[in-house]
Amino acid sequence: QFRAEYLELHPYDQAAVFEEEPEEIRKQIYSYLSPDETAEIMENVDQENADIYFTEMYSRYAAQVLAEMSADDAVDILKEMDKNKVASFITIMEKDAADEIKHLLHYEDKTAGSIMTTEFVSVSAADTVREAMLHLRAEAPDAETIYYTYVVDQDKKLVGVISLRNLIIAEKDWLISEVMSDRIVSVSVGDDQEHVAQMVRDYDFLALPVVDFQNHILGIITVDDILDVMEEEADEDYSRLAGVSDTERGEDSAFVSARKRLPWLIALLFLGMITASMISQFEDTLSKVAILASFIPVIGGMGGNTGTQALAVAVRGMATGDVARRGKMRMVIREGLTGIINGVTCGIIITLVVIIWQKSFYLGLLIGLSILSTLIVATLAGAVIPLIMHKLKIDPAVASGPFITTINDIISILIYFGLATAFMGFLPQ
Amino acid sequence: QFRAEYLELHPYDQAAVFEEEPEEIRKQIYSYLSPDETAEIMENVDQENADIYFTEMYSRYAAQVLAEMSADDAVDILKEMDKNKVASFITIMEKDAADEIKHLLHYEDKTAGSIMTTEFVSVSAADTVREAMLHLRAEAPDAETIYYTYVVDQDKKLVGVISLRNLIIAEKDWLISEVMSDRIVSVSVGDDQEHVAQMVRDYDFLALPVVDFQNHILGIITVDDILDVMEEEADEDYSRLAGVSDTERGEDSAFVSARKRLPWLIALLFLGMITASMISQFEDTLSKVAILASFIPVIGGMGGNTGTQALAVAVRGMATGDVARRGKMRMVIREGLTGIINGVTCGIIITLVVIIWQKSFYLGLLIGLSILSTLIVATLAGAVIPLIMHKLKIDPAVASGPFITTINDIISILIYFGLATAFMGFLPQ
Ligand SMILES: [Mg+2]
Ligand SMILES: [Mg+2]
Ligand SMILES: [Mg+2]
Ligand SMILES: [Mg+2]
Ligand SMILES: [Mg+2]
Ligand SMILES: [Mg+2]
Ligand SMILES: [Mg+2]
Ligand SMILES: [Mg+2]
Ligand SMILES: [Mg+2]
Ligand SMILES: [Mg+2]
Ligand SMILES: [Mg+2]
Ligand SMILES: [Mg+2]
Ligand SMILES: [Mg+2]
Repeated sequence: QFRAEYLELHPYDQAAVFEEEPEEIRKQIYSYLSPDETAEIMENVDQENADIYFTEMYSRYAAQVLAEMSADDAVDILKEMDKNKVASFITIMEKDAADEIKHLLHYEDKTAGSIMTTEFVSVSAADTVREAMLHLRAEAPDAETIYYTYVVDQDKKLVGVISLRNLIIAEKDWLISEVMSDRIVSVSVGDDQEHVAQMVRDYDFLALPVVDFQNHILGIITVDDILDVMEEEADEDYSRLAGVSDTERGEDSAFVSARKRLPWLIALLFLGMITASMISQFEDTLSKVAILASFIPVIGGMGGNTGTQALAVAVRGMATGDVARRGKMRMVIREGLTGIINGVTCGIIITLVVIIWQKSFYLGLLIGLSILSTLIVATLAGAVIPLIMHKLKIDPAVASGPFITTINDIISILIYFGLATAFMGFLPQ
Repeated sequence: QFRAEYLELHPYDQAAVFEEEPEEIRKQIYSYLSPDETAEIMENVDQENADIYFTEMYSRYAAQVLAEMSADDAVDILKEMDKNKVASFITIMEKDAADEIKHLLHYEDKTAGSIMTTEFVSVSAADTVREAMLHLRAEAPDAETIYYTYVVDQDKKLVGVISLRNLIIAEKDWLISEVMSDRIVSVSVGDDQEHVAQMVRDYDFLALPVVDFQNHILGIITVDDILDVMEEEADEDYSRLAGVSDTERGEDSAFVSARKRLPWLIALLFLGMITASMISQFEDTLSKVAILASFIPVIGGMGGNTGTQALAVAVRGMATGDVARRGKMRMVIREGLTGIINGVTCGIIITLVVIIWQKSFYLGLLIGLSILSTLIVATLAGAVIPLIMHKLKIDPAVASGPFITTINDIISILIYFGLATAFMGFLPQ
């Protein structure tokens, strides 16, 4: 009875209940449920913990569950396990499922191949609509989606696609070749998952076929997996901007968190020491005009802020293709002008504030000019650095905010003390 | 002939071609195409420019195009137009479409109501599978999706749902009430779009029904629109972290960009002036020990960096529900411990570096202790500030990186000069 009621739940809710239970109850659940039923739960649990669950099951049962799962989800879980365990599951699995999984395990992370699944429905162009519908009905329980049927020739080359929507409104005696669409949009198995997500978003597809270089269909990527890709990519970009490794998770201990953030902090610490050693060159100037030190944080800070703004705009623009469409030069010029406008505005404001506060015209002018130059240079740096990274085939999204901030700190300090040395005679000593 | 070939293209590609053309050609395209065909293009053009296109059309044609579009897409475009123009289109539109659109225009931005559409398919629980299939086939050309059919009672209350997958494998004579699922997952019309996206992502739905407080079905939200919501929300969070208004676009002129970034920069400029005035209190100390100024950027910078890291982790954790699940206190404690571990590590490193470089044990100790305290306080600030914002019902994602950085600048300067004053007697003068 528990069984019937539990299985009434949506698999996502089944998984949520399951994950709250202690080991003994989980083992009882395995014994109540068929591998097929457990497979649906495993498709919905947190992948980080799936390793534990499969280790608790009898090996033969675990292998059956893996075989019953959508191949893409099974592979995601196997990728987190150690190699020996994976091999042992695969050896006791039925051959078809084992081959599929072995094949999918090969694809590089974050490519179309790594997120596709092999449970798609295909028909021949010479079939009638009636035959296709019968085939679809038979495949329905196992297919990842039946809403698109892919049309292939004898060589398994992709020649068309037909949606179930068009299939059910077509006459039963028509040939598939007459009703299918032959303008197929597909992705290559090695394409970046971000590119795949963009395609699905543009074309509003529910699934997209993945082909090899000879246009053989290898699998499909369904929109539910694209939602996860988008979340993962957004998470990555957000974390990188903040200088956090994106593998940090809510349940990490303080020790794990610290270890993940430390590399960034130590790198930035050493960059910061460069700034310190530069300032120390100006010790003389500073001991004569100590008030100069007060403005170090505001000048460095403004450089960092405006650089991060320009960085974010550039990274977004490159991700959406805006930059490619409108030209890099045009973006750089725009950022330069933006830097000038912001620099002049902030420069005038701070000049006035400092003149009133410190009652020194030249000090005001010095700070104002420093802010002006810093904002121009920092804005350009924020825009140009991701372009250079892109040129070097590094994902510009890894240019973290703290990194840009620290670089701009150094630049702005140089500008500031350079100008201060020039103004030396006019400053209040 | 152009017409036939053009219409062969996917609507997204049609739109891409269309958007490249000058006004005269666009006007020719309108004259070649039926309102229905133009509607498909308008569903795929950049919404920011749609205003221009509709103004170019004859009003009656424009109203027909709007009526033929998916109601949600039509509403998105009308929301960008001025009120008078919208009213004039609605008056010449056929009554049904006009009523639907007027209704949808009411919902507040970023709620389920604002992204739903009204073109869903519904049947009665007393219908047979055969009847439902016939109905579905008739509705197919106009419906937003036919892959889910919603089951309603006489009052239009939602009582069940059935997927086309289950419909085509069911026996034709069965009743819908026998094959439908009555565990319906739905969202309320006022729910935040982010919540809706999370539901679709968790349950892997292709569409989700939207109901009022009495469980009447008002519309559906389809997964293609969820992809756009996710992109929009990710964009917003990313931009806010960088201190950029998320309305900034690639084609903005430098002047527009500058105006969008300036409010942030000016606010941060004044916060920076607070830091400056605080440091100026220590002018005496600084003129005696000028080397102290050199370390201002590294201490402030490390505070900013670690604060931004903690902020990003907290904001992500709150968005995914991790923080709610595991407790706020637990997160704060974890961040505190992380701050201690990172503070001790960075503190020891910098102490050694400064002792070797400046040959002063006490100066090294001062800098090390300052880094230690700054990292602890800044990490906690990064974690606690978003929690407070959440408590105050402000979206924690608006807590921008530059803002946290500047706050932490102030805190770290206070710590640094406080400690320096205490160490005064021991420092190299
Ligand atoms: Mg799934
Ligand atoms: Mg399988
Ligand atoms: Mg996957
Ligand atoms: Mg990527
Ligand atoms: Mg789309
Ligand atoms: Mg999948
Ligand atoms: Mg990315
Ligand atoms: Mg659409
Ligand atoms: Mg309509
Ligand atoms: Mg919309
Ligand atoms: Mg999902
Ligand atoms: Mg829509
Ligand atoms: Mg948000």
